[in-house]
Amino acid sequence: MLLRTSTLLLRTLREDPADAELASHKLLVRAGFIRRAAPGGFTWLPLGLRVLKKVERIVREEMDAIGAQEVHFPALLPKEPYEATGRWEEYGPNLLRLKDRRGADFLLAPTHEEMFTLLVKDQCSSYKDLPLSLYQVQTKFRDEARPRAGLLRGREFVMKDSYSFDVDDAGLEKAYQRHREAYVRIFDRLGLEYVIVSAVSGAMGGSASEEFLHPSPQGEDTFVRSAGGYAANVEAVTTVAPEPVSWDDAPAAVVLDTPDTPTIESLVAVSNALHPRDDRPWEAADTLKNVIVLLRHPDGTAEPLAVGVPGDREVDTKRLEAAVSPAAVEPFDEAQFAQHPELVKGYIGPGGLGLRTTGEGETATTTGIRYLVDPRVAPGTAWVTGADQPGKHVFGLVAGRDFTADGTIDVAEVRDGDPAPDGSGPLETARGMEMGHIFQLGRKYAEALDLKVLDENGKLVTVTMGSYGVGVSRAVAAIAEAGHDELGLVWPRSVAPVDVHVVVAGKDAEVVAAGEKLAADLVAAGLDVLLDDRPRVSPGVKFKDAELVGVPTIVTLGKRLSEGVVEVRDRATGERADVAVDDAAQHLVALVRG
Amino acid sequence: MLLRTSTLLLRTLREDPADAELASHKLLVRAGFIRRAAPGGFTWLPLGLRVLKKVERIVREEMDAIGAQEVHFPALLPKEPYEATGRWEEYGPNLLRLKDRRGADFLLAPTHEEMFTLLVKDQCSSYKDLPLSLYQVQTKFRDEARPRAGLLRGREFVMKDSYSFDVDDAGLEKAYQRHREAYVRIFDRLGLEYVIVSAVSGAMGGSASEEFLHPSPQGEDTFVRSAGGYAANVEAVTTVAPEPVSWDDAPAAVVLDTPDTPTIESLVAVSNALHPRDDRPWEAADTLKNVIVLLRHPDGTAEPLAVGVPGDREVDTKRLEAAVSPAAVEPFDEAQFAQHPELVKGYIGPGGLGLRTTGEGETATTTGIRYLVDPRVAPGTAWVTGADQPGKHVFGLVAGRDFTADGTIDVAEVRDGDPAPDGSGPLETARGMEMGHIFQLGRKYAEALDLKVLDENGKLVTVTMGSYGVGVSRAVAAIAEAGHDELGLVWPRSVAPVDVHVVVAGKDAEVVAAGEKLAADLVAAGLDVLLDDRPRVSPGVKFKDAELVGVPTIVTLGKRLSEGVVEVRDRATGERADVAVDDAAQHLVALVRG
Repeated sequence: MLLRTSTLLLRTLREDPADAELASHKLLVRAGFIRRAAPGGFTWLPLGLRVLKKVERIVREEMDAIGAQEVHFPALLPKEPYEATGRWEEYGPNLLRLKDRRGADFLLAPTHEEMFTLLVKDQCSSYKDLPLSLYQVQTKFRDEARPRAGLLRGREFVMKDSYSFDVDDAGLEKAYQRHREAYVRIFDRLGLEYVIVSAVSGAMGGSASEEFLHPSPQGEDTFVRSAGGYAANVEAVTTVAPEPVSWDDAPAAVVLDTPDTPTIESLVAVSNALHPRDDRPWEAADTLKNVIVLLRHPDGTAEPLAVGVPGDREVDTKRLEAAVSPAAVEPFDEAQFAQHPELVKGYIGPGGLGLRTTGEGETATTTGIRYLVDPRVAPGTAWVTGADQPGKHVFGLVAGRDFTADGTIDVAEVRDGDPAPDGSGPLETARGMEMGHIFQLGRKYAEALDLKVLDENGKLVTVTMGSYGVGVSRAVAAIAEAGHDELGLVWPRSVAPVDVHVVVAGKDAEVVAAGEKLAADLVAAGLDVLLDDRPRVSPGVKFKDAELVGVPTIVTLGKRLSEGVVEVRDRATGERADVAVDDAAQHLVALVRG
Repeated sequence: MLLRTSTLLLRTLREDPADAELASHKLLVRAGFIRRAAPGGFTWLPLGLRVLKKVERIVREEMDAIGAQEVHFPALLPKEPYEATGRWEEYGPNLLRLKDRRGADFLLAPTHEEMFTLLVKDQCSSYKDLPLSLYQVQTKFRDEARPRAGLLRGREFVMKDSYSFDVDDAGLEKAYQRHREAYVRIFDRLGLEYVIVSAVSGAMGGSASEEFLHPSPQGEDTFVRSAGGYAANVEAVTTVAPEPVSWDDAPAAVVLDTPDTPTIESLVAVSNALHPRDDRPWEAADTLKNVIVLLRHPDGTAEPLAVGVPGDREVDTKRLEAAVSPAAVEPFDEAQFAQHPELVKGYIGPGGLGLRTTGEGETATTTGIRYLVDPRVAPGTAWVTGADQPGKHVFGLVAGRDFTADGTIDVAEVRDGDPAPDGSGPLETARGMEMGHIFQLGRKYAEALDLKVLDENGKLVTVTMGSYGVGVSRAVAAIAEAGHDELGLVWPRSVAPVDVHVVVAGKDAEVVAAGEKLAADLVAAGLDVLLDDRPRVSPGVKFKDAELVGVPTIVTLGKRLSEGVVEVRDRATGERADVAVDDAAQHLVALVRG
């Protein structure tokens, strides 16, 4: 296909758009690939749409290759199936809801688990109909609170979502692995670096789950990895809990006045002065900080939650949100504190926390607030913590002996140097963009919507499902973010809007004719070509535009054409080579075909 | 590509779905092409999606061929641009509106005139940037009151909409003609019979407009055509108005008691008895019936309108709606009549109608209701009509002499035998499905959104636009409606889900192997093949399924394979031919390639 700059809807901009922060966003707009059309909504211009379709094609080819079948659902869906699974509420304000002319509730689907489940329920009745994998490439909607970062987080975006249906767990595991391998091939072909990390489920429910993250300082997700190969979304990292230790020799806990301990540092100093340990000095990690939050459940009800973490770490908001999902986390504000006068701000200890209704030990009262602690608060560990009295701390409070939590919760911040849970070495944290997500949903949706088939013995069994997503429009942005330099975009061949950018750098009829002929020869050989044939534009502007647009191979026909030579430039490396004009087409075809 | 019935998501049904009326709807569901997923929303199953994509490809190829450039807009759009053009209100309840989490108003776009206009305003500044034609293939939304007829009228559907931008009317005319020719090629390639009819603009505003209608008794649109080549949407037919005649010799109008004239027929009889004409007897067409309706304007205000039509014709609701658009037509009910006691139900004459504020002639009062009459009510024509008094009619009331309307309105029903306005002979009416619409929008949107460019003289001129739509998903239904028989669907080759349906009609290893080989050979030759390889399904069921699915060419490998023969059947004609198994692949490739 031949595109001519003289007629193409392509207006490059020298200035960055005011609302753009990321390089990908700025450059995709400046190079004429996308334009903002709505809050969180972009128009794909001709060059951008070509890239998007190439990404879509790669995704489709790899899905087809694993036997997944393409279908297409409506985006505008009735409330009922999403109500049956609880997602109508759980999705909260991210879900775009609307009413039709009769007042019936509808939504714009963010994902389609329910609909695929109902389709398979409608079409399949026997184990013989399974395994089955279905997918769609579709425009999805999500009411992002702050749609930003261009295509990376919009209200309307293109996703490939697929779903597997199996009669047993072994089948699901196989489907999951097939999708995993397909995703590896997809991101390899897109030329996008990725890390496969363990992930938590968020609002989706289910079990095994991994994300394909593109490591990038611009990423919205934090993940950790070890040199030994462990990688996880920060929400999914598990803490290595210490072995329980005996408290037989532990001294009794002591409550002491602790004036002037506004910081953990000062508390540690006071601890070592007033109540030294036998074995080693107290450290910040021996203090136990209790944080109260309010959990807001999807049905609107609220409940306080106390979280105990070592004083040297903060509660990580994302990890907490993931751990309590689908409940939302709200601050425990003054009004809430007023309802719980037994909570002494700044001196909250385990004594008054927990669901048990009678007090123990020194604290005879209890708040009845659910109390979950970091896994490091293992039985036998001794802590410096609040004594539930103003200006007093308790020293040597031993977990298991002096207090018992209602359970553990793994939401303390993860730090560079923390041990990987699989023993593969210290962790390092990094930022990434979520490009894909594979997920063993299990039977949650099948149970909610009653998807059962007859097994080999004629018995009805609930189907087990996987769900698998690729951010298609987001991939365009990630590729642009990964592949750009100070001059503009740098596309990999697999998704470049065209194969070759032919720049006619001169007004002589000869140069123009040679440019036309070369472009025609390339098109005849099956390549897609962008021909800069603008008659009144200077070579300098054309070069700048070519660099901005970022086609992998740029051919310039200019002054040296009189010597029979054209210049072939590699956009990524900047390497230039002179090629005889008569050999140029052949040379370029070989280059593109690799 | 090879599809295997054994794994394909294809469950044919023997029973028609309960909610389906049209054959296309029934068969597309029964043959496993679509499934209902929401009110007015369908899921495209694998075979249906293949047909849809083939239609899309044909549309894209023909749009690309006329130099239109593909872009893609969001579907979820802010209110403001649609408010600027008045369409936010004009669209009424057909527009799906919603609010985002901040309460801002959004809509799901039914068409994108505003956004294309704004894009061009953003990207183009000079006549040198024009002409420009842009298009998208996109999912559109419309809140249909009664989503029915399967894909023919849904709430969510795929459309190709394109827009042309020109600096002058001559350019628009050219762009319009290019689109017209592209549409001719599109519908020719789709194998869909069509009539190009003059159309009115409806809510769109603008001037020249034609529709591509597929003639079908199931169509929702009525159109007329003459043997001489005139064709128009019924909303667009204009009535040939009689020449004005002199009233010099016309007798004075007379008011007479007319008891017992409940019907037009009885009124005609009474007229000829009480007040005979000199020239000929009174006919039903000489009575003047005045109908009052309430116009509801987009801003919510209402206004009565009186329409005078010859008594032998009804007011055609669709023509009336089109004529008064964007106002909506509501009945003039008892409450309204109560507000206008001067209107004597059953005896409303021109005397009390019209915007003039003082009465004339026998009726000294006036309603102040706007009064528009059929073009046949030409100056000098004499009428029998209501005398605005109970039980009385007036005879020989002459238009122009005895009453004057506020204007004409062409909304009387059109009948078989009416003359075509271009003199090309009598009209016949027929039903059709709207498949495409081309439309010279003119400057309405450019003016509303201030789209101007500099012309050759450096003067700012308002751009003139065309808009052009093809119903893509609707085309699938229309093709199915046009191409089916009592056995099932009958696809034309251009959009068939696959090229050849290979039926393995036997369990012998030899037959199965021959089927596999033939399918593989066809795929190797570049054909798309559906192989019915289901091991436990009888040949009879396979034949029935093949007929239902409707692939143009069905090859059966059965008993006669032992003689080295396979049967090749043409689905449309039913013709069967025996072909040597060794020649079958070559034979079929030739057949498909045509």
